[in-house]
Amino acid sequence: MIQIYLTVGVSLVALAVAALFAYQVLQADRGTPKMQEVSEAIKEGAEAFIRRQYSTIAMLAVVVAILIFAVYFIVGDTSYAWHTALAFIFGAFLSGLAGIIGMWIAVRANLRSAAAARINAGKAVVLALRGGAVSGLTIVALSLLGVSIIFTAFGSDPLETPFLIVGFGFGASFIALFAQLGGGIYTKAADVGADLVGKVEAGIPEDDPRNPAVIADLVGDNVGDCAGRGADLFESTAAENIGAMILGVALFPVFGINGVLFPLVARAFGLIAAIIGIFVVTESSANTGSPMGALNRGYYVTSILAAIFFYVAVWWLLDNNIWFFYAGLVGILLSLAFVYITLYYTDYGHRPVDSIVNASKTGPATNIISGIAVGFETTAVPAIAIGIALLASYWCGLQSGISVETPFGVLSGGLYGTAIATMGMLATAAYILAMDTFGPIVDNAGGIVEMSGESEEAEKRIARLDAAGNTTKALTKGYAVGSAALSAFLLFSAYMDQVANITGQAFAVVNLASVPVFVGALLGAMLVFLFSALAIRAVGETAQYVIQDVRRQFKDPVILAGTVKPDYASCVDITTKGALRNMVLPGALAVAFPIFVGFVLKYEAMAAFLMVATITGVLLALVLNNGGGAWDNAKKFIETGQFGGKGSEAHKAAVVGDTVGDPFKDTAGPSLHVLVKLLATTTLVLAALYI
Amino acid sequence: MIQIYLTVGVSLVALAVAALFAYQVLQADRGTPKMQEVSEAIKEGAEAFIRRQYSTIAMLAVVVAILIFAVYFIVGDTSYAWHTALAFIFGAFLSGLAGIIGMWIAVRANLRSAAAARINAGKAVVLALRGGAVSGLTIVALSLLGVSIIFTAFGSDPLETPFLIVGFGFGASFIALFAQLGGGIYTKAADVGADLVGKVEAGIPEDDPRNPAVIADLVGDNVGDCAGRGADLFESTAAENIGAMILGVALFPVFGINGVLFPLVARAFGLIAAIIGIFVVTESSANTGSPMGALNRGYYVTSILAAIFFYVAVWWLLDNNIWFFYAGLVGILLSLAFVYITLYYTDYGHRPVDSIVNASKTGPATNIISGIAVGFETTAVPAIAIGIALLASYWCGLQSGISVETPFGVLSGGLYGTAIATMGMLATAAYILAMDTFGPIVDNAGGIVEMSGESEEAEKRIARLDAAGNTTKALTKGYAVGSAALSAFLLFSAYMDQVANITGQAFAVVNLASVPVFVGALLGAMLVFLFSALAIRAVGETAQYVIQDVRRQFKDPVILAGTVKPDYASCVDITTKGALRNMVLPGALAVAFPIFVGFVLKYEAMAAFLMVATITGVLLALVLNNGGGAWDNAKKFIETGQFGGKGSEAHKAAVVGDTVGDPFKDTAGPSLHVLVKLLATTTLVLAALYI
Repeated sequence: MIQIYLTVGVSLVALAVAALFAYQVLQADRGTPKMQEVSEAIKEGAEAFIRRQYSTIAMLAVVVAILIFAVYFIVGDTSYAWHTALAFIFGAFLSGLAGIIGMWIAVRANLRSAAAARINAGKAVVLALRGGAVSGLTIVALSLLGVSIIFTAFGSDPLETPFLIVGFGFGASFIALFAQLGGGIYTKAADVGADLVGKVEAGIPEDDPRNPAVIADLVGDNVGDCAGRGADLFESTAAENIGAMILGVALFPVFGINGVLFPLVARAFGLIAAIIGIFVVTESSANTGSPMGALNRGYYVTSILAAIFFYVAVWWLLDNNIWFFYAGLVGILLSLAFVYITLYYTDYGHRPVDSIVNASKTGPATNIISGIAVGFETTAVPAIAIGIALLASYWCGLQSGISVETPFGVLSGGLYGTAIATMGMLATAAYILAMDTFGPIVDNAGGIVEMSGESEEAEKRIARLDAAGNTTKALTKGYAVGSAALSAFLLFSAYMDQVANITGQAFAVVNLASVPVFVGALLGAMLVFLFSALAIRAVGETAQYVIQDVRRQFKDPVILAGTVKPDYASCVDITTKGALRNMVLPGALAVAFPIFVGFVLKYEAMAAFLMVATITGVLLALVLNNGGGAWDNAKKFIETGQFGGKGSEAHKAAVVGDTVGDPFKDTAGPSLHVLVKLLATTTLVLAALYI
Repeated sequence: MIQIYLTVGVSLVALAVAALFAYQVLQADRGTPKMQEVSEAIKEGAEAFIRRQYSTIAMLAVVVAILIFAVYFIVGDTSYAWHTALAFIFGAFLSGLAGIIGMWIAVRANLRSAAAARINAGKAVVLALRGGAVSGLTIVALSLLGVSIIFTAFGSDPLETPFLIVGFGFGASFIALFAQLGGGIYTKAADVGADLVGKVEAGIPEDDPRNPAVIADLVGDNVGDCAGRGADLFESTAAENIGAMILGVALFPVFGINGVLFPLVARAFGLIAAIIGIFVVTESSANTGSPMGALNRGYYVTSILAAIFFYVAVWWLLDNNIWFFYAGLVGILLSLAFVYITLYYTDYGHRPVDSIVNASKTGPATNIISGIAVGFETTAVPAIAIGIALLASYWCGLQSGISVETPFGVLSGGLYGTAIATMGMLATAAYILAMDTFGPIVDNAGGIVEMSGESEEAEKRIARLDAAGNTTKALTKGYAVGSAALSAFLLFSAYMDQVANITGQAFAVVNLASVPVFVGALLGAMLVFLFSALAIRAVGETAQYVIQDVRRQFKDPVILAGTVKPDYASCVDITTKGALRNMVLPGALAVAFPIFVGFVLKYEAMAAFLMVATITGVLLALVLNNGGGAWDNAKKFIETGQFGGKGSEAHKAAVVGDTVGDPFKDTAGPSLHVLVKLLATTTLVLAALYI
């Protein structure tokens, strides 16, 4: 099939480009020995964490694979049993591999970017973005390659195979859950611990080399933001591909194999657009304007190219039915809208953050109150935008005039319209991921510059990049939430198709007016709150270990005097152990509770569980991500000198808000995106349990 | 009809008992002139607020009544138009009347309770509870009387009239929304304003007479906790009655008029149980044990009697079908469960509050993080309890063996089982309300004792009552959330019956798998967050006015020296104006946004909007109420001497948490209960707009 050759070919090209970028990064100047020493410590810590984390996750994954196999073996569906278990392992493996590659380059790009920042900000931007692009391209390409390979390996029967590969998505989301939870707990426990003892108790600045937790904090940026979010979007693209392929099966009478493979081709085209977009960001373009301006330019180019390529794909594979191009455009526009909405709510100079800044004048209590009000408020415009996008793309699908007689009734093109909007939204994923990983790389570079005592000018230069990195991290989270919401619908319908396949009866209605279904919905919404509670609490508990270790080390006067280096490795080790231990409870809840509910209340209630958990999860993720981002930037704005600047009462209040926001925006919020998608893939794979 | 005579008779008896209690309270000792002076100031402030608030609300209500009339007049249903508009006005009037009577006695009982506390704690308990019972009995009796009267006045056709009286419930919830919002904003703006300037900036104690906002703070307890929650439960009982009557219409072939009037009789029996329960709490019983023990004894007696009476009602009106008695028992048990669950999460000595206490050691940030984790966590057990209660009562209904052929298909007794569980839960409403209003009365009494410089012993005595009052207030909120969740199902089905009535077609399916319906659900969940944001922000904005006024007064040195009394009236006036102005935006959103969504997306999407808003609203209300309560008690626990007691760093951190929790638990949380029920009654009344 030419479509499969094309996707495999593009994936390999993308991997080659990633290798080229990695080579360029590794060839760049590595700075002073002092810088290398700091970077080395970060690298060691990050790699130690990833090693231990992935060995834990790998064991869990094997257990789950065996369970999947056992369930379907007992049910008597041996073919489904081994296909799904294998696909699960393959998905988990590729997701882990992509995460490890991304981390590997990020902990090396930080040093090169720091070294470049001493001389030339533009070069630092390019190195950090290309370092991030290694991660972004690898993730999207491996996800695409994985789906293509497994589709081919499992027989490439356009009507059967899409159902056999759903385990791939489950494997990816299983890894994503633990990667995001473990990484998120790690990064914020280290951050909160370092700040509470270092800044508040000992009164030393952030990133001060005397703080024993400072390396753990820098390690955290890599394992949380970089590896965690990478796994998140790996599974987004994988699950979306599979869900859309299943919908394509239903439309087989209209488009044939083209409808099934369209998602893969659209993603491949998106990869090409992203590669070009990354090349657009050059040293000179980053030097002439602001760093953020240069990154945005690349993003716009990617979006426009993605739209054009989308048109080509529709022309080629979907009989040039222009309405599907419009549906894709809706998705691309939604991703742009989310970027602007997130900026409005989390950047200073706009009402929301300014209100938090003002409330800081009357102390921490009013800072927190106004921050939470902002967080709650940020659900409104995104929810309306998602609603409009869903309705508009559904309407485009209806306008396409497609309709298919299925054994269960007539299927219109409406749902396929929403599926195509999701593909449009995810078309720019590789570029977005590159921008996202840019964040922790320049954040780390800033830490390296500060800890190795470089010139003030270099510090200023890197601080500007760090600010841009904070913005890109916030934007990516908005994008991840938006795509989770949009792609959810795709996965609902895949689940319902799966159930209909198993029972041989139509399953097109999830009747919320039925009592068991309503109870399912209630429990789904509840899971979102409980999961968030456990994730937040895990940060608190892990931070306590860090706090105790830092306090213990500070008791030795030579540490605070700066004459002897603190034992960084001890903090790194404690945080690693704590994060891995504390990720188990929320992780187990996220996997086990839905299975229990589905088993007791059956498949229709399970669908409502999934749908309402998605709604609540998306909204609460917005609250946590944007609230946290707004607190962070309110503090940063005061640090520019507003209301007395650093050290003022307003600043102290803002620091409290920032600390509260940390586990919100970097642990619970991002874990919720993953939870929502994990729920979808679990129900899809385990549908037989709920009949 | 004997059933109507019975309910009217019991309602009148309950009103007579309320009058007797009022007489007893008014006859009691009024204490020293100094105490009377303080009480007088509270009374004036509260009455001024209520006067202004209810004139504002009355105008809004007239506008809405005209709109309702106009809508149905244009649709061409003149009979429905004037019936509904009249019922709306009548419901609004009675709710307002009940609120005013409750407030009138509360601001008088506080003085008598304070006077009694100088000598005898038991007498103070009895006076405060009977003062609260005036409110509780009046609210439930007027609601019951109102529904009975309007049912009779509108023709008492068992098949038609229930649909004509739905306006009564909408009127009640309209008042409840603004009463709870306005009162909630008032009470917390005054509280936060008084604390921030008084305690934090000037360093004077709480309830210090030198603080200009201290009277406004005491007024707030009455207008928020007493009038607000009263209106909340007035509408609960009214809406539940009407919803259950509509369900009774569907079961007419089985039970005849008895099924329609069962809800009224069950409520009347509940009133008798509550009256006996209140008489059980005597001076000597309150003196021998703890105040809370005496109140609990009354509650248990009420619950047991309610169960017995319920059995009688089922035997009499529902053909002695024992399964409906079991369903009622499920409701009574759920209300007991909610009381214990709320206690566990918000009282110290249990893990949740203790975790906040421990986190206070490391400062305000960790206090807030652990408080929010606790708040999120508190959704779990209540949601599971609600889920089990819904399923169990539904199952009881199915076991009843009832089934009816309707034009739209076969109707089983399942839904009627959930309706009866709701009646069981609300059977104890009058007693619960008496306990609730006990809270602000003893809180005020404490303020009066402190401000008039009474003996330390009297202060200690009243402090114990105040602690019991805090507990009863928390329990009532739990009860209100639980009953909102349970009764919601009743109102959904009433709405769906109403739509079927209008369209003449079956409407039994709310298909969440349809795109517009899913978008409706998404927007419903979003409204809950946005509404909470606006309510919380309204407190912040109103508090700013209070802060400015207190600061202005403190500039005059004679105020802080205590030689000249501050201008209490100015603070009261400013808070009144601020609260009334700031309640408009969230209130208007709550009324207008659902209408807009329903108009655009139509009735099925509207049903999903309503259902998912209910789920999210109930869960977020639990988060806000219990989180706020836990913070409050964490602070109180530290004040008993834990971790250095008052003035320690841990205490300062806990004060921040308490302040953050204030607008959560007393403004946004309680307003959410009302929002959920308002949504149900609005959709019910305006169903014709969504066709």
